[in-house]
Amino acid sequence: MSEKTRTNQPSGGAPTAMSSEIREIPQVVRRLVEDEAEKFDAVAAAVRSAPRRFAVIAARGTSDHAATYGQYLLEAELGLPTALATASLTTIYHRSLDWSDVLMIGLSQSGAGPDVVAVTGAARAGGATTVAITNEPDSLLAGAAEFLLDCKAGPERAVAATKTYVAELAALAALVARLSNDPRLLPELGRLPSVLVDVVRIAEAWVAGAEPLVQSLAASDRMLVVSRGFNLPTALEVALKFKETSGIFAQGYSSADLMHGPVALAQPGVPTLVFRPDGPMGAAIDGVIDRITAGGSEAWLIGGAEVLSTRANVRDVLALPVGLPEVLTPLAFVVAGFVLAETVARRRGMDPDTPKGLTKITRTV
Amino acid sequence: MSEKTRTNQPSGGAPTAMSSEIREIPQVVRRLVEDEAEKFDAVAAAVRSAPRRFAVIAARGTSDHAATYGQYLLEAELGLPTALATASLTTIYHRSLDWSDVLMIGLSQSGAGPDVVAVTGAARAGGATTVAITNEPDSLLAGAAEFLLDCKAGPERAVAATKTYVAELAALAALVARLSNDPRLLPELGRLPSVLVDVVRIAEAWVAGAEPLVQSLAASDRMLVVSRGFNLPTALEVALKFKETSGIFAQGYSSADLMHGPVALAQPGVPTLVFRPDGPMGAAIDGVIDRITAGGSEAWLIGGAEVLSTRANVRDVLALPVGLPEVLTPLAFVVAGFVLAETVARRRGMDPDTPKGLTKITRTV
Repeated sequence: MSEKTRTNQPSGGAPTAMSSEIREIPQVVRRLVEDEAEKFDAVAAAVRSAPRRFAVIAARGTSDHAATYGQYLLEAELGLPTALATASLTTIYHRSLDWSDVLMIGLSQSGAGPDVVAVTGAARAGGATTVAITNEPDSLLAGAAEFLLDCKAGPERAVAATKTYVAELAALAALVARLSNDPRLLPELGRLPSVLVDVVRIAEAWVAGAEPLVQSLAASDRMLVVSRGFNLPTALEVALKFKETSGIFAQGYSSADLMHGPVALAQPGVPTLVFRPDGPMGAAIDGVIDRITAGGSEAWLIGGAEVLSTRANVRDVLALPVGLPEVLTPLAFVVAGFVLAETVARRRGMDPDTPKGLTKITRTV
Repeated sequence: MSEKTRTNQPSGGAPTAMSSEIREIPQVVRRLVEDEAEKFDAVAAAVRSAPRRFAVIAARGTSDHAATYGQYLLEAELGLPTALATASLTTIYHRSLDWSDVLMIGLSQSGAGPDVVAVTGAARAGGATTVAITNEPDSLLAGAAEFLLDCKAGPERAVAATKTYVAELAALAALVARLSNDPRLLPELGRLPSVLVDVVRIAEAWVAGAEPLVQSLAASDRMLVVSRGFNLPTALEVALKFKETSGIFAQGYSSADLMHGPVALAQPGVPTLVFRPDGPMGAAIDGVIDRITAGGSEAWLIGGAEVLSTRANVRDVLALPVGLPEVLTPLAFVVAGFVLAETVARRRGMDPDTPKGLTKITRTV
């Protein structure tokens, strides 16, 4: 373990913004879950009374992974078939969709992406119930939707989004928990902020001591990140963080999709990071781990308590003390991925706060 | 140009099955579009008379890229918001969705994938109108759905699917063209088989002469494949072919999504293949090409006639004589990607018909 790793400082200087913002995650979630309860109650009441048969979520980049979480969440808790929006149909092809009875959620940290704004506006004009989830309450997106859920995550200085990603997940969960028939979801969400305090501390300590993993990733230009179900977005988002901050070709996959061809990429020199929830989904993922390591890839496992007794062939495991229903674990597991990506970027001599060629706000049409 | 490349033979032997099956694509599409017209008329009539407000498509692997095409197609031509199914909600989490008024399409070449079969069956039990598109009319999937569209592509010997992928696209297009308000779509689809004869010939000739591209890809372990809109599935599917047959970390991206972070991967030594349709979408993609090459990646462009006059900074272009509405170009552009992937795999000394660790039928639950 190097001193540089332990102190989360680039070249012995101040902590990176990315590292500081990861540490803000518990308080960002606490603010949404506790201080904003009345706002979420009001929007949930409005959504509950509106016709809704289907949901569509519009987003790009990191927010698109939050949208993937939203898809699983809305389908599992509300039984609503949920689509991820195909923005170009509105912005490039100028086609009209039948938006009646649709619950449309526009997700964007900046609220500035013209494509997400356009789809949300088209859906509202077409009769959808529209909700904006954004960290910028005065943004175009906030103006385009009928209802606004402000992430209130504070300014994010690092280009790689961390606290705003978890804030988007928390906002989705806080809305859906109020609409769900499962009465346990909202109280469990209330426990999340204190769980996250432990998760940040334990993830930082584990990464600081996980020298073989950090070395392996720092030396690699390719890696796989695997999970499935509620944590598929965790795999996609952690892979994106490695792309952005380290330039590593990190491919995020559903363990099921991986088996349909891409498992050919599991080779020597290509490390694999697996996010494994406890329970039946974890068991389903275990079988895939053995296929990955059979190809010569070394696997590391991050998950719940069950990773401690895994029989899969892995190099090392991190058991996070989540004790949460699986549907809420994506807000915790991703924190360990963020800490690892930040550490690997610094080890590669890169500044995770200002990746080459990227800007904080990306405006695609 | 090597003799080996020109004759599509591994080590001087017989042509690969993959190469032969690519050449079958025009006749596979002709069979679906001409010989099966009555069958498609009947299923289209049944779907037209059933209630449908949304569509959901269930698929894995290559078929999941056909499903992505289906999403754009159903949304553009029928105005139906369309989701890609999250199979684990049915198979692992055992949640129930509200399937009423849903048009569910189950897509699988083998028809044997338990997850795709389970979601299709759950949707049918829940009141959805269900259609199976498969190359195996006696499969579990065919039995699970109310209606069957048989791809009739014949046996596929290569593990990497080519003709069955295009057959799935053609089946989707042949169904949707009958439900669309656009009267030109069905006649244009009728022109496709003869267009594809030219496309195969021209793509093979171009790849045989594209020595710098073949060398660059054969020497690379990472690449980007980029398009957007109707051809997003082309990028995803061609990337998968390079993964399967060459083990290259090929990442397929929407040009819009690429800008939200992953453009950091566009580096020297990482070639980029771009599929560019003519028209407004092509113009939208052009701006992204310049960002890709600014990062040091060399770009090659495959598309319609407009690629010949592109001002983007690219190494070489292939203009395919498609003359088709953009919505049908994915059936043509992907052929060039298949020919290139097959050629590169052989150049790397690999057998594209039997990729290491993969089998023809993958059964995930």
